[in-house]
Amino acid sequence: MHRTRVTIVEEALDANNTIAQANRADFDRAGVTVVNFMSAPGAGKTTLLERVVADLPGVRAGVLEGDVQGSLDADRLAAKHVPVTQLNTDSGFGGECHLDANMVRSALPQLPLDDIDLLVVENVGNLVCPAEFDVGQHARAMVYALTEGEEKPLKYPVMFHACDVVVVNKIDLLPHLDVDLDRFVANVRAVNPTVRLIHLSARTGEGLQEWCDWLLALRRGA
Amino acid sequence: MHRTRVTIVEEALDANNTIAQANRADFDRAGVTVVNFMSAPGAGKTTLLERVVADLPGVRAGVLEGDVQGSLDADRLAAKHVPVTQLNTDSGFGGECHLDANMVRSALPQLPLDDIDLLVVENVGNLVCPAEFDVGQHARAMVYALTEGEEKPLKYPVMFHACDVVVVNKIDLLPHLDVDLDRFVANVRAVNPTVRLIHLSARTGEGLQEWCDWLLALRRGA
Repeated sequence: MHRTRVTIVEEALDANNTIAQANRADFDRAGVTVVNFMSAPGAGKTTLLERVVADLPGVRAGVLEGDVQGSLDADRLAAKHVPVTQLNTDSGFGGECHLDANMVRSALPQLPLDDIDLLVVENVGNLVCPAEFDVGQHARAMVYALTEGEEKPLKYPVMFHACDVVVVNKIDLLPHLDVDLDRFVANVRAVNPTVRLIHLSARTGEGLQEWCDWLLALRRGA
Repeated sequence: MHRTRVTIVEEALDANNTIAQANRADFDRAGVTVVNFMSAPGAGKTTLLERVVADLPGVRAGVLEGDVQGSLDADRLAAKHVPVTQLNTDSGFGGECHLDANMVRSALPQLPLDDIDLLVVENVGNLVCPAEFDVGQHARAMVYALTEGEEKPLKYPVMFHACDVVVVNKIDLLPHLDVDLDRFVANVRAVNPTVRLIHLSARTGEGLQEWCDWLLALRRGA
């Protein structure tokens, strides 16, 4: 039974990759750079987008907002006058825990691809499955809240390995935590030696410019 | 294709429920009370277990430790001289994001059921899927770190609805966060009006006794 199950999953991932390639081809044709933006729940994805997406010099950004249900985050981002498309995953069994390529494809007709240069796909808050599904992005970014502790890269290596940048958020809380930042960084390096790390506090603004610069550089390189 | 996929998932949940009933019957026969212990990554599940499982008066506790990979948490708990059984989910496609009844069943032969009264199943860190799979537990508990923000009960209602108790951890950080505790509690009540709430700081010890008392009362009621 176990063997059968693994086979089904592998076939599902094959299908996902085929659709992801089609998505990427459509994004490329439209000249839109796409970031798959991931984290555990509450790490600060929406806040980091609120702070930058409306103010990227020369870049028109849009957001595809993935949630199990509701539109709380999309409402926050729409208030920044950025085009936001909501994608809910709760049509399945109480809610899928990640976005896949087919879900993103189903949203393509609603995306204003002619009016944006950069699309941030805000994934469902989860450190496991979102990293396993290519949605057609050009880069993967994750936010990690220091409050989550120093050992998570070793426990969730697929996510940390998959990302091009790790934004280390809530750095302002470091004096109040039993967390060793150097050890966290060493753990990240153990699973992804070359990943870009940005230390940031969405609350104080420290590091926000570096996050903007990363998005701008990604767009320029596209 | 979507319809087919939902059917498969529903069948999988049916099978899961059948196996969960068998697990619960085995636990009942052995006189062991079982808690399914869930949270997002880094909320503090392992720390809360470290603080109490070795010192529950008159109750012999054991832990079934679910992780995608590695045994970091099991090692921490074994140091407390509590029987710990490790269950890794990474034999699938990079790691399942939750425990299901069949995974727990596969661990039954390794569990020292004759030597314990209370088994805590520490689930994979994830606010979505773990709540959807009965593993054969008698109660569900979750830990929520206040650092995750005040709106998560509305975004992940299945988890908050499924639980018998929500341990609100990291309460010592409240002065340093832009989080309204009253609003968080109201959001919890909106999806689960009767759930028990325990405000706690694993760091300062505030609320730990209430968490112990909840586990002891659960055991007495079994």
